[in-house]
Amino acid sequence: MNQDYIKADNWSIIEEGFDQEMVKSSESLFSIGNGAMGQRANFEESYSGPTFQGSYIAGVYYPDKTRVGWWKNGYPEYFAKVLNAPNWIGINVLVDGETLDLFKCTRVEEFRRELSMKEGWYQRSFSATLQNGVTIKAKITRFLSLDLDELGAIKYDIQVVNNDAEITFIPYLDSGITNEDSNWDDKFWNTTSVSSKGNRAFIEAHTMKTNFGTCTFMEAQLFHEGKKIEITPSETKEETFIGHSYPHHVKKGETLSLHKFGGYTVSTNHKAKELIKAADSVISEAIEIGFEALLEKQKKAWHAIWQMSDIAIEGDVKAQQGIRFNIFQLNQTYLGKDSRLNIGPKGFTGEKYGGSTYWDTEAYCIPFYMATKDHKVARSLLKYRYEHLEKAIENAQKLGFSNGAALYPMVTMNGEECHNEWEITFEEIHRNGAIAFAIYNYYRFTGDYSYIPEMGLEVLIGIARFWHQRANYSESKEKYVILGVTGPNEYENNVNNNWYTNYLAKWCIEYTIEQLQKVKDGYPDDYARIIGHTYLTSNETDLWKDVAENMYFPFSEKYNVFLQQDGFLDKELITVDNLDKSQRPINQKWSWDRILRSPYIKQADILQGFYLFEDHFTVEELQRHFDFYEPFTVHESSLSPCVHSIQAAKLDRMEQAYKFYLRTSRLDLDDYNKEVEEGLHITSMAGTWMSVVEGFGGLRILEDKLSFTPRIPKGWKSYSFKINFRNRILKVIVTKEETRFKLEGSEQMSIRLNGQRLELRPHEEISA
Amino acid sequence: MNQDYIKADNWSIIEEGFDQEMVKSSESLFSIGNGAMGQRANFEESYSGPTFQGSYIAGVYYPDKTRVGWWKNGYPEYFAKVLNAPNWIGINVLVDGETLDLFKCTRVEEFRRELSMKEGWYQRSFSATLQNGVTIKAKITRFLSLDLDELGAIKYDIQVVNNDAEITFIPYLDSGITNEDSNWDDKFWNTTSVSSKGNRAFIEAHTMKTNFGTCTFMEAQLFHEGKKIEITPSETKEETFIGHSYPHHVKKGETLSLHKFGGYTVSTNHKAKELIKAADSVISEAIEIGFEALLEKQKKAWHAIWQMSDIAIEGDVKAQQGIRFNIFQLNQTYLGKDSRLNIGPKGFTGEKYGGSTYWDTEAYCIPFYMATKDHKVARSLLKYRYEHLEKAIENAQKLGFSNGAALYPMVTMNGEECHNEWEITFEEIHRNGAIAFAIYNYYRFTGDYSYIPEMGLEVLIGIARFWHQRANYSESKEKYVILGVTGPNEYENNVNNNWYTNYLAKWCIEYTIEQLQKVKDGYPDDYARIIGHTYLTSNETDLWKDVAENMYFPFSEKYNVFLQQDGFLDKELITVDNLDKSQRPINQKWSWDRILRSPYIKQADILQGFYLFEDHFTVEELQRHFDFYEPFTVHESSLSPCVHSIQAAKLDRMEQAYKFYLRTSRLDLDDYNKEVEEGLHITSMAGTWMSVVEGFGGLRILEDKLSFTPRIPKGWKSYSFKINFRNRILKVIVTKEETRFKLEGSEQMSIRLNGQRLELRPHEEISA
Repeated sequence: MNQDYIKADNWSIIEEGFDQEMVKSSESLFSIGNGAMGQRANFEESYSGPTFQGSYIAGVYYPDKTRVGWWKNGYPEYFAKVLNAPNWIGINVLVDGETLDLFKCTRVEEFRRELSMKEGWYQRSFSATLQNGVTIKAKITRFLSLDLDELGAIKYDIQVVNNDAEITFIPYLDSGITNEDSNWDDKFWNTTSVSSKGNRAFIEAHTMKTNFGTCTFMEAQLFHEGKKIEITPSETKEETFIGHSYPHHVKKGETLSLHKFGGYTVSTNHKAKELIKAADSVISEAIEIGFEALLEKQKKAWHAIWQMSDIAIEGDVKAQQGIRFNIFQLNQTYLGKDSRLNIGPKGFTGEKYGGSTYWDTEAYCIPFYMATKDHKVARSLLKYRYEHLEKAIENAQKLGFSNGAALYPMVTMNGEECHNEWEITFEEIHRNGAIAFAIYNYYRFTGDYSYIPEMGLEVLIGIARFWHQRANYSESKEKYVILGVTGPNEYENNVNNNWYTNYLAKWCIEYTIEQLQKVKDGYPDDYARIIGHTYLTSNETDLWKDVAENMYFPFSEKYNVFLQQDGFLDKELITVDNLDKSQRPINQKWSWDRILRSPYIKQADILQGFYLFEDHFTVEELQRHFDFYEPFTVHESSLSPCVHSIQAAKLDRMEQAYKFYLRTSRLDLDDYNKEVEEGLHITSMAGTWMSVVEGFGGLRILEDKLSFTPRIPKGWKSYSFKINFRNRILKVIVTKEETRFKLEGSEQMSIRLNGQRLELRPHEEISA
Repeated sequence: MNQDYIKADNWSIIEEGFDQEMVKSSESLFSIGNGAMGQRANFEESYSGPTFQGSYIAGVYYPDKTRVGWWKNGYPEYFAKVLNAPNWIGINVLVDGETLDLFKCTRVEEFRRELSMKEGWYQRSFSATLQNGVTIKAKITRFLSLDLDELGAIKYDIQVVNNDAEITFIPYLDSGITNEDSNWDDKFWNTTSVSSKGNRAFIEAHTMKTNFGTCTFMEAQLFHEGKKIEITPSETKEETFIGHSYPHHVKKGETLSLHKFGGYTVSTNHKAKELIKAADSVISEAIEIGFEALLEKQKKAWHAIWQMSDIAIEGDVKAQQGIRFNIFQLNQTYLGKDSRLNIGPKGFTGEKYGGSTYWDTEAYCIPFYMATKDHKVARSLLKYRYEHLEKAIENAQKLGFSNGAALYPMVTMNGEECHNEWEITFEEIHRNGAIAFAIYNYYRFTGDYSYIPEMGLEVLIGIARFWHQRANYSESKEKYVILGVTGPNEYENNVNNNWYTNYLAKWCIEYTIEQLQKVKDGYPDDYARIIGHTYLTSNETDLWKDVAENMYFPFSEKYNVFLQQDGFLDKELITVDNLDKSQRPINQKWSWDRILRSPYIKQADILQGFYLFEDHFTVEELQRHFDFYEPFTVHESSLSPCVHSIQAAKLDRMEQAYKFYLRTSRLDLDDYNKEVEEGLHITSMAGTWMSVVEGFGGLRILEDKLSFTPRIPKGWKSYSFKINFRNRILKVIVTKEETRFKLEGSEQMSIRLNGQRLELRPHEEISA
């Protein structure tokens, strides 16, 4: 943890001072993205110190051959790696012939980074003295355009401070890049052409195996004291590299600027043969508009996003900065424009984990996107799973299931499983339940039932079939049991009767049966189509029902709580506060067997179930389970604090709720887990949003209406957020004294506040 | 399975006919070894078809950097690989300038291999026509000397059949070898010198990291029609290769022979600087003696081994061949001369698994070596663990244990753990119990108590401390439980209260406390020394006792059996005979999760406990547990059938016992598991010996005396074996009608036969 590293600020992420040790962490924190591509905050100029280079294109992956110590039947042969893409940001800078490299400069001062979350740009400035004695000041501004999402732009200003100097900018493209986490040191990219056309350059490269075609492109413009210099650059061309050289003599005190436009055109959006042509047209448009005007458009586009998705907090800058950082990163990662994409756990900020899609999407991200975007975005995420249904059925077949049972992968890029730890790949099957729940949740929130007859019911049938087959009847318990699973708490492996998994299984079956009836009644054509190809019979659904009705749930009479799994009470039940601090985090200090046999919980497990199915349990039951389990919870998953924050708020334990809130919202900014250099925790950021809106705001959908039970942390003056509920936009402002509502649009709306009905009329602010 | 591949024969392993598909399997089956080195039956001459090259030197290993998909804390960084050693057997053969290569010959006939188990040599003969039309007949005889255990000898005879021909033998040494199972394609060997001296050649090479120095050496002699040809060979020398060329013109019908002597001197037995000198002296001795006289010595040496360890079976050639193959391989692998060595699971026949020492040694191999060798051999195996005690304590510390608790590694070469599957490395802790049991068993059989005060008690204390710390008190069960283990049945992972593990833990503690008292009373100096550095107090042993006395054992009232682990009865209890044959072996057909949640048992687990602690349970209890568990057992471990054979014999189910016997004794000869090409299953071969002597013969030690309850399989006329019991050699012959005993030596001996006491006098045959 490093609480003072990032300066507190309402709207920006700011680093001051140059610390070589922090370069990799800052590269993560200052990452930028526009949903279609993204990149770590690598320096444009040369840097010979420790760095983790990363540029990523949404949806472009490589099936790296799996490497495991001991192979188990059923492991996937390939792991879909998030691919480090060709570098277009590079600008080598020569100062009187010496390469600018902050690692080698004799002095670096006034180093500052700022990521403007409000406006969507990243700026770096510093003063540096090179080994040749020349001192320069630099200011570099960079953004990835939201409007032209194949385009990025960089403005690199250099002022010569103590001398006249010859400055040479060498903007370049480089496709000779590798992944840090390659399993077999395979070459992932094959470069097929390197070319120039005046000030433009192009590198065509395609990925091996998956054959995604890309054209990486650039064009640069040189300005001396703001005046454009027409210059034909000299070219350096290699097999996977092209650089253009822009030398210019600059007098002491003068500024030389390079505007570089670059980016990618990709065969998923263009014909493979027309990638250069498409790139050419993007550059022409960019040049036509120009850097400054593009930046203005960028600010406007981000303004529009914030209009809808901002959460404003008064009285607590760090809390404010935290939530905005989370919302900003979610929007940088996924904007919902393309149903082939999803929300990778590290977004465009690192390679770790690979794949783009985890159960995080359904369990944590969908609520954020539903409430802050058009409902099509959430629908697009659901459609993604529908499109992978065939592969989920194949995946289940590989593991011995039949008859259309579907097991969605733990990690995927294209619908195929690509993870290979048996205790997770084969056993962390609750992910299936999160997908079914998201279908339910989507309809509950948006009121758009159409997804279910059109697509969702088939997904539900595959999932219900899986649960039916995965459970088995225990003669000894006279109940159905689910053996050998890993619950959300991954600090238990291969356990029997994980309560959360069993509960989801039962619920999935019941919900599917309900939806079958509803579709049969209301959408007979869809029903006929679906029954026609799933061959579902009432015989089969009777068998499902038997499983659901007779599911086993481990329970302790003594503590009057459900047990996380069979045998939980055999553990040494020493709470976390009795654990020596030197032993934590246990995932770094303890061997795996010790973690497994301990009672310590990585992330909400039973409490995750209580979160999803809140209305199935009383507050008193929640309190009992919270009091029993939270003391054993080490929250070593980024997905844990948000759910606990929501539950603590519901129990009116606002100090605890606030502590959890800070941990989830500033997880990366304060580097709680000492690993931010590997990239950001994107999916848990949606959990932070939930902890404000659902936790503090108490947002629920009750009887088709929004309902709030607002609470406010002690140190806050107020907080506010907006909700897009069924195409009506509601702004909610919570202060210590009251809650105010402002409804946009033209229709009125009925809500509940602390259980009381409230009628809202458009453009009228109501306080209560 | 391939039942007719090896010809049935009482004393030899015979293959007839050349099948390229079978070359790798035969390379395993015809392997030879002399305890100090060993090699697969690779061809001496060139072979361009599929082959698995392997020569191994006992104790020479390489710590290959571990490669796992997902790292867990506590994993060892290195895995001790059994190293493929430089090749000294190679002899390229040119026939009129064309390289003899059976993969390329136009015709190969009369191909035959024979491994004489009786005399310890391997012979291969064939007739081949080369592409140049020359037909030759070849006969190659090879052995690794038991007398000079750094030496091997080859006699390569070629008769020219249809023409005169120029034959050139090029015997060579080659240190440019690699391992098939290298993790990172590291280079394991560094060659430092390649030299010749007349007809002798030497390659010095040392292993990377471990720095084992070796000199690989050879000298050859040429004979034409039996007459020695004096010739100075021309030399081919490369960085890691040296070849000597012996050309000679041979007339049609004549025979040219090359005698090649070769082998290794190793820095573990000589000064590193004197390896060539030592090699020179070995060759000089070999040349002095000559091939034929060396072979005579070899026959005598094997005769001596068989004198003591043979099991003769009349009336069942396949059963006879099977048991002799097992005994032969055990003796090829380990002769007990060097306490630094142990019994690798693949011996000198392959690389798979790595490491040399598993719990197999204590649980399966020690009984064989105790009964067929001087007791020093078993003592040497026990001493090996004593010498690794420090590392076992370090290993436990890494996993969070303290105060001298010892966890012996699952797999080791030098005392350090080198396996890395968490469910095995960290959880298959019953191995500690097997080591304690072997101490008990050694004293029970040999009567040599001295090991315990001198060494064993310290091992026992480390193990008892481990069990005490590994168990925890369950408030809910009001008993001590052992959570998160893998029992001998590796088809269950991370289970709670594996009965076998809990039983061993309890027994280890009780046995240690017993021995503490015994050493205190009888060996006060040793006791003082041990207490002095273990700081053991009666306080601590009281805590141990509490664990042992209050250990939990899962039990089913319904079935009146102990449960293999908590929750076993929740499984779908479908017996193996109801499993479709297409589904087996399940370890090749099913995904790992499916295996784990099935009731199927890989190898004896509870029944392994009943085997070790036979006297703790009634025959009726054994029968009940056998009837309950065997039907769920798939015997997919090589260590399973032997224990079941013994138990079935005890229950007088001789048909079943015989079936298990065949499976264990001919596992490799008939390739039950379709993997013999990877190497032989050496350690389970000792189980085969047990299944005859303990199973059919009913050998037990009761009240310090040998006891027998002999049974004989239906098809057998008789079988006989010898037992070295406390330095008295007893031969036992069992026929359908009677059992005969012959005692060697000069002392008389009292035994039990079917519960009746019998007095045996030396050299008198007693029938009963």
